[in-house]
Amino acid sequence: MTTSLPPDISQSLLQRFNSVRQRSVDYCAPLHPEDCNLQAMPETSPAKWHLAHTAWFFETFLLKPYLRNYQPFHDRFEYLFNSYYNGVGSQYPRAQRGLLSRPTLDEVLHYRLHVDQSMTTLLSQVDHPARQDIIRRTELGVHHEYQHQELFFTDIKYNLACNPLAPQYRHHEGLMPSVESADAIRWETFSAGLISMGNDAHNGFVFDNETPVHKRFLAPFELASRPVCNAEVLAFIHDGGYRTPSLWLADGWAKVQQEQWQHPLYWQQHDDHWKVFTLHGLAPLNPADTAVHLSAYEADAIARWLGARLPDEAEWELAAQSLPVQGHFLSGTGLLQPGRADATPLSQMFGSVWEWTASSYAPYPGYRAAAGALGEYNGKFMCNQLVLRGGSCVSDPEQLRPSYRNFFYPPDRWQFSGLRLARDGDSI
Amino acid sequence: MTTSLPPDISQSLLQRFNSVRQRSVDYCAPLHPEDCNLQAMPETSPAKWHLAHTAWFFETFLLKPYLRNYQPFHDRFEYLFNSYYNGVGSQYPRAQRGLLSRPTLDEVLHYRLHVDQSMTTLLSQVDHPARQDIIRRTELGVHHEYQHQELFFTDIKYNLACNPLAPQYRHHEGLMPSVESADAIRWETFSAGLISMGNDAHNGFVFDNETPVHKRFLAPFELASRPVCNAEVLAFIHDGGYRTPSLWLADGWAKVQQEQWQHPLYWQQHDDHWKVFTLHGLAPLNPADTAVHLSAYEADAIARWLGARLPDEAEWELAAQSLPVQGHFLSGTGLLQPGRADATPLSQMFGSVWEWTASSYAPYPGYRAAAGALGEYNGKFMCNQLVLRGGSCVSDPEQLRPSYRNFFYPPDRWQFSGLRLARDGDSI
Amino acid sequence: MTTSLPPDISQSLLQRFNSVRQRSVDYCAPLHPEDCNLQAMPETSPAKWHLAHTAWFFETFLLKPYLRNYQPFHDRFEYLFNSYYNGVGSQYPRAQRGLLSRPTLDEVLHYRLHVDQSMTTLLSQVDHPARQDIIRRTELGVHHEYQHQELFFTDIKYNLACNPLAPQYRHHEGLMPSVESADAIRWETFSAGLISMGNDAHNGFVFDNETPVHKRFLAPFELASRPVCNAEVLAFIHDGGYRTPSLWLADGWAKVQQEQWQHPLYWQQHDDHWKVFTLHGLAPLNPADTAVHLSAYEADAIARWLGARLPDEAEWELAAQSLPVQGHFLSGTGLLQPGRADATPLSQMFGSVWEWTASSYAPYPGYRAAAGALGEYNGKFMCNQLVLRGGSCVSDPEQLRPSYRNFFYPPDRWQFSGLRLARDGDSI
Amino acid sequence: MTTSLPPDISQSLLQRFNSVRQRSVDYCAPLHPEDCNLQAMPETSPAKWHLAHTAWFFETFLLKPYLRNYQPFHDRFEYLFNSYYNGVGSQYPRAQRGLLSRPTLDEVLHYRLHVDQSMTTLLSQVDHPARQDIIRRTELGVHHEYQHQELFFTDIKYNLACNPLAPQYRHHEGLMPSVESADAIRWETFSAGLISMGNDAHNGFVFDNETPVHKRFLAPFELASRPVCNAEVLAFIHDGGYRTPSLWLADGWAKVQQEQWQHPLYWQQHDDHWKVFTLHGLAPLNPADTAVHLSAYEADAIARWLGARLPDEAEWELAAQSLPVQGHFLSGTGLLQPGRADATPLSQMFGSVWEWTASSYAPYPGYRAAAGALGEYNGKFMCNQLVLRGGSCVSDPEQLRPSYRNFFYPPDRWQFSGLRLARDGDSI
Repeated sequence: MTTSLPPDISQSLLQRFNSVRQRSVDYCAPLHPEDCNLQAMPETSPAKWHLAHTAWFFETFLLKPYLRNYQPFHDRFEYLFNSYYNGVGSQYPRAQRGLLSRPTLDEVLHYRLHVDQSMTTLLSQVDHPARQDIIRRTELGVHHEYQHQELFFTDIKYNLACNPLAPQYRHHEGLMPSVESADAIRWETFSAGLISMGNDAHNGFVFDNETPVHKRFLAPFELASRPVCNAEVLAFIHDGGYRTPSLWLADGWAKVQQEQWQHPLYWQQHDDHWKVFTLHGLAPLNPADTAVHLSAYEADAIARWLGARLPDEAEWELAAQSLPVQGHFLSGTGLLQPGRADATPLSQMFGSVWEWTASSYAPYPGYRAAAGALGEYNGKFMCNQLVLRGGSCVSDPEQLRPSYRNFFYPPDRWQFSGLRLARDGDSI
Repeated sequence: MTTSLPPDISQSLLQRFNSVRQRSVDYCAPLHPEDCNLQAMPETSPAKWHLAHTAWFFETFLLKPYLRNYQPFHDRFEYLFNSYYNGVGSQYPRAQRGLLSRPTLDEVLHYRLHVDQSMTTLLSQVDHPARQDIIRRTELGVHHEYQHQELFFTDIKYNLACNPLAPQYRHHEGLMPSVESADAIRWETFSAGLISMGNDAHNGFVFDNETPVHKRFLAPFELASRPVCNAEVLAFIHDGGYRTPSLWLADGWAKVQQEQWQHPLYWQQHDDHWKVFTLHGLAPLNPADTAVHLSAYEADAIARWLGARLPDEAEWELAAQSLPVQGHFLSGTGLLQPGRADATPLSQMFGSVWEWTASSYAPYPGYRAAAGALGEYNGKFMCNQLVLRGGSCVSDPEQLRPSYRNFFYPPDRWQFSGLRLARDGDSI
Repeated sequence: MTTSLPPDISQSLLQRFNSVRQRSVDYCAPLHPEDCNLQAMPETSPAKWHLAHTAWFFETFLLKPYLRNYQPFHDRFEYLFNSYYNGVGSQYPRAQRGLLSRPTLDEVLHYRLHVDQSMTTLLSQVDHPARQDIIRRTELGVHHEYQHQELFFTDIKYNLACNPLAPQYRHHEGLMPSVESADAIRWETFSAGLISMGNDAHNGFVFDNETPVHKRFLAPFELASRPVCNAEVLAFIHDGGYRTPSLWLADGWAKVQQEQWQHPLYWQQHDDHWKVFTLHGLAPLNPADTAVHLSAYEADAIARWLGARLPDEAEWELAAQSLPVQGHFLSGTGLLQPGRADATPLSQMFGSVWEWTASSYAPYPGYRAAAGALGEYNGKFMCNQLVLRGGSCVSDPEQLRPSYRNFFYPPDRWQFSGLRLARDGDSI
Repeated sequence: MTTSLPPDISQSLLQRFNSVRQRSVDYCAPLHPEDCNLQAMPETSPAKWHLAHTAWFFETFLLKPYLRNYQPFHDRFEYLFNSYYNGVGSQYPRAQRGLLSRPTLDEVLHYRLHVDQSMTTLLSQVDHPARQDIIRRTELGVHHEYQHQELFFTDIKYNLACNPLAPQYRHHEGLMPSVESADAIRWETFSAGLISMGNDAHNGFVFDNETPVHKRFLAPFELASRPVCNAEVLAFIHDGGYRTPSLWLADGWAKVQQEQWQHPLYWQQHDDHWKVFTLHGLAPLNPADTAVHLSAYEADAIARWLGARLPDEAEWELAAQSLPVQGHFLSGTGLLQPGRADATPLSQMFGSVWEWTASSYAPYPGYRAAAGALGEYNGKFMCNQLVLRGGSCVSDPEQLRPSYRNFFYPPDRWQFSGLRLARDGDSI
């Protein structure tokens, strides 16, 4: 939520604004209005709600405070599409978003149009006294929309998966060329020392939870060259991993028993083979593919079974600091799956899957949340969640950085989440 | 489920079949696809599901057993749209019907077309060896569809009411002419005696739960000339009725406290006046209108507060046996509300609201459920529910009879349900 | 709650009062203080609570209103030991009775002593202006205590059964002589006609729910000579009864699946044989014994599987009207189990097990609840429950009559409840 | 779980063993058998269960593996009193411990005697080949019992507090001399630097979760001279703290609304004054006393409202490393309450209340859990919990160290838990 401003960025910002806004709409194109209203669990918002809420964000934090004479599209939308900003007001209950058949998809698209036109007006007011705030908040709104585009895919996947008809979001030829196993994991070694981590945005946009830059002392460690792949999860399953309490955290084992977990989310066992539900339809499970849709509990248990552990987020960030944001992304592959677990050293640190870390999501030393309702963006969630790093196949590479911190609850599985192994290094 | 067959009824049956089938589709016309997918609680099925299930009924019980070479529209629909017939097979979970965005509304309409065309073929086979069964089951399917048309309105009302925008199903001018109070209740008296009740269908269609005709002994009683109206419920509220445990059955009082009931469903208190959500939008509460959307617990408490009681279903049936099926129906008034509580003696025994009785829904002496899966239609629900009699504003008068038994659980409120007072007569 | 008063009954009443009061205490003798505090589910009150509540009843309804200068034992007991009388005041939450370690068992016994001494004083005031009410209410209190003595056994059985150590309440030699099967069921036939049922207490004590005497018309029916025995339940199990939905009411089948019922409560399958938890410890299951601890859902399903049905309560009462209150009672056998299902015609109509009927618990025509808090004794429970008739092995024969109506919810199993088959008779 | 062994410690260990074991029994002396069986929520085990489980610990981890010919006291106790060691076997359900009226308190005391006598035998075998393991495990068992003695008080407090009679555990004269407010907080400052934390037990017993010693880099910070006191919590309440979402973590605010928290646990508002439930009975709230029974959510919100934050556990440990284990302890004061919040610098770092930190309970870098079932002691709980430091009034000073890590879930309030403020220092 902090940006260093180049002198004149309004044109490029407007272009990015328009391009990102359009893409949210484009993503809904393969869906029917009924699909866009689905909410299969409280955490998975309807696609239509994502469309409306991202418009609400610009309306609430830019148009209402800064655009003179702005007419809100509908006086109840402030309430209906507020996600969790108590500073703005009360919120329509999250778990019931799927009951909002009205406004219809068409009306929401009109709402977006209304907001986009007003934003174009606002962004063209180069002499606006709050120009800097407007640019900063617009930048934030664009990154907010990146996040919801990613949630769009994670949510619609879960929502469609509940249907026994296993509907496709979009057909894709040659989904997963069959490869039996990924290359063996190699270990990248890192020595002990005081490192600097975090990001103060001297070089572009960052969220407040990445600030401030601060020091951490790290013991020597090693990090795996690639994420864990399906072949390794299959071996875990065949070895009774889901029935062996000693491999699990206590809360994880309780969840395994309560939910009767026997395999990752979206896996289906058919007699002697496995299938997996994807946004391209049911597909054979490819052992060489990166394992995805794991809870942190499963990630932790699989790591333990493999004689390793999850990395600390500082370890992960150190390893990533010099790497380009490259990997398997939807924008490159057209695939809504993580694809093959590559063997190049530290491959796919970005793209493929969000990688669970062992780090609790907490403020960095010296962290200050922004003032006002926008201060609720990140800070109030810094409890009970774990940090995930990198980015997944459905992230936009534009939104990612080595310092980017994603966060979910340990039992959550519907994200495109997997793991990369770490282990203690030699204390020479 | 028993019909006495006139010699040649195929033509009129086909006409009724087509007309009823068309009406289900017509009822959905004012709705958007998102509306048709809503399920705000497990009991309120999506409009689309009603459309599909009523087609499923004809496909399952007529086309599959009787139409040679019939090709089912989709091999998974037998599972998806089976409501509760264990004899047919397992069922998609009731509480998750709102998660079925696919088949889409369009696909369901095609499904209906496919079934209707096949049914036309089947009904035209006048020499079919199972001709009598076909006619009987078609008749049952038509009455089944009447019931689902009524449920369509009760369910869509509940589903839309969850939306803070209070969407209209259909606009209606001059919804409720304001009248301050209904005429005073008068009492119709009935003397003691052995009566005959139930219906063996010598004269048209009946459900199996109305059979067999049997004798009941009744003590003298009196029945109110009209249903309880809103003015009486308002007086109950003002007298603290919802806060006075001595007026309530124990289970009812537990529900009042658990759900924090303070007024009937769909009522809203706005400062000094009341509004009510209707399918024609939010409207002022009209004191003279028949009270509706009451649970049996509320009906019982209101009756007790008024110094009366709910009628036994035998008392109700005796009073209705000689009455024509007349009253306030959608088909006559165009209104999706019960309208004014009339003062003519025993008015609105049909139409307006389903009237709760004190009678537990139980088999009549000598009752036999039909063989096979169709035997599950009524019999297995004969526990824990109470009988309602008459019919509501959204019933079709064609579907009603003095012997007709509707049934719901005592806490249910989303039905168009109200009450008519009864009291013990003089034992002269 | 209505009694016809013989001229001078105070002496015999006082004797019965003392004898019944003493027995409640005696029943607790084999238990430890910890046992007396157990509440394994909200419905099973601790033994200590039963002791206190029955004292509370006399204190609340007799001593406080009628005994001049009566000093309540403790000012919070009115709240703590009020079961459900809203007319008296609010109540300590039922589900948390097991959390009341204080007052201790000793203190409760002192409370009882205090009440008993005061009651002796009150009952000796033969000139008390409210003498008739005092006698009537004392009589009611005595019968209230009979009911709680029976609940004491049903509740402590459930509470102890949760313990994997299977503790005995009391040892009993030769618990169940092994007999392979009971004699075949014979059928007693009854012809159609208008009967009189209910009881107006011209001849002793009755509860208000047995009043008034009224007429019922019955179709011809037949009633089994004995209750269903374990051999028949075993055959039901072996035939897959607990896995066959067509045998069950819809709500019953839902419960079977939800609770994973596979046999009656307290049965345990050990490899190739069955054991049963009793208050005399774990014992082999005796096929010839009367089946007990069945819910109404199980009773209904077993009856259906046996080609019969549950009786209507009027049918049961007609059959019982001329029978003496005889059967297997604790007071005779010393056994806390129903024992063998006898073969004599209409044996064990009383004793052995409470027999589920198909009749919903409802007021008789003309029923009036008593005024004041005592009116809550029975009337407010007349919804959602079914009537059971007869009496069980842990009932006191003194408390039973042909007109006695017991009532529980259909899924309840912890009562000593079973069934006797009925079927429609010939309509000659 | 690691101890450095002095040459001959068996005599002193046996003495400590006996003394600690005796104290557990002594603590139960003021209680009745019914009290000892209470379990008011799943987390609060019955006092009797604590007595049995601590015996089970010695029986399972010492007597069974090491004492030749040891006869277990009862073959089912391995199952009944296993808390959570899957490596030992399955466990009686935690939430139902309060249903175990058997074994009775007397029987459990016999069980303890049996174990203690056998332990005396074992500890006297100075030539036992596993002597070192026996001593290490005995030491662990003693510290395990310290922990359960503390839980005994936290649990019995909660269990008794559910009783409207507010029973005292023990009377105490002059519980809380009324003082209006504690001295003002002063701030101890700490500069940035690399610190060493953790404890490798060169100097006595430590738990494995305190190992290994490792380095941490800390930014400059300040720590409050005393814990937050009731006066500050009262000011928070009066300022609407429990109604202001911006002060709370998101999960904390959800809990506030769900549980309707309006003040700390055990506080009661009586018109214009506050009372507090203590183990010495209901008492007036003393503003100068250390605030206790706060969840981490409340601690975090109160800290935020006071312009500060919770300390990191490394900050706390650094500040405590040179302090003696001194403070308000039951063993010194006889009080089962934290008492007054003193003004001396860094007072009460030990004693009074466990202090919530902002640190998630996680393994230290290089942590290894012990092999076998004892490895479950700490490691598997390292998720979803926060670290508390110091020790409370009901801790034994013998069990505490600057490196000691306690841990509970953020919403937990029944512990003797409070907070000490921290804030960022100047980055000179």
